[in-house]
Amino acid sequence: MKHNLPHTISLLTRTPAALNALLGDLPEAWTLGTEGNSTWSPFDIVGHLIHGEQTDWMPRVRMILKFGDSRAFEPFDRQAQVRESQDKPLRQLLDEFARLRSANLGDLRALNLQPEDLERRGRHPALGAVTLSQLLATWAAHDLTHLHQISRVMAHQYREAVGPWSAYLGVLQCAGHSAP
Amino acid sequence: MKHNLPHTISLLTRTPAALNALLGDLPEAWTLGTEGNSTWSPFDIVGHLIHGEQTDWMPRVRMILKFGDSRAFEPFDRQAQVRESQDKPLRQLLDEFARLRSANLGDLRALNLQPEDLERRGRHPALGAVTLSQLLATWAAHDLTHLHQISRVMAHQYREAVGPWSAYLGVLQCAGHSAP
Repeated sequence: MKHNLPHTISLLTRTPAALNALLGDLPEAWTLGTEGNSTWSPFDIVGHLIHGEQTDWMPRVRMILKFGDSRAFEPFDRQAQVRESQDKPLRQLLDEFARLRSANLGDLRALNLQPEDLERRGRHPALGAVTLSQLLATWAAHDLTHLHQISRVMAHQYREAVGPWSAYLGVLQCAGHSAP
Repeated sequence: MKHNLPHTISLLTRTPAALNALLGDLPEAWTLGTEGNSTWSPFDIVGHLIHGEQTDWMPRVRMILKFGDSRAFEPFDRQAQVRESQDKPLRQLLDEFARLRSANLGDLRALNLQPEDLERRGRHPALGAVTLSQLLATWAAHDLTHLHQISRVMAHQYREAVGPWSAYLGVLQCAGHSAP
């Protein structure tokens, strides 16, 4: 389907509650488990989502509206959340993500973007020309890429425990292509 | 990690609320979209999860406890939900899944399974010898395989809308290995 701003906002609105329902108060064996060295746990991923709310999505929306494609976006620091969230409990990170997302969606709605705004162009430091519409669609798809990753990382913890059923579980065949 | 029954129950308990938070009242463009002919929408997947609660997981637990490996499980009908759920609203399916899951977990807890029970063997019609422990771990991993699939199917709807960012979104590289 084409990008649809109300559909994007519907999805972005639901992600914090979905992560809260899935991960809140879940045993740490699930939330701190990774796929091996230098891979992310669900805890790390929530930290990454928080960092996106703070530094990536709405700042880039504002850059496009203010500067168009005359200035490139700041590169997104994918490791920042490791430094910023490491001493906090997951419950606090989930609450922080929900609060930041809610505030960002309030700001997005207040912009009252029109169809012609959505076609405005910005400049990505690596990808080149992008539109505001593509940026907003990517914000939603980025939530889904990390929900996909969280489910894969959690399933990995039971890779041995499921025994011969591993052949039937699609998530265990997933090679791990969820680079942020 | 090894199979841990309380951890399994923790995860199984959360899936209905997570799906409800993600999918409840989401526009049908997200919940009825598929990955193409003969593939499943999030709506279809919730129907499949309902069917598992009705015919697969707890009936197989009881078969192992009653018959051991002297009788093979009934094969799981992966298409059944298409027949049974097609005329219902998603909200009703989500509520039905939550109700069935809650009842099944009540029954599971009431069995008060001990470590030696978890080592009891059953017989899968295709996979052969399996243990009760493996069956229960698979129940949890099966939830995750479908959460993984739902996030992939939803992201697919924005495959074009994200423009050049598709290269960065891991979920869009996933080839679709979520056979149930």
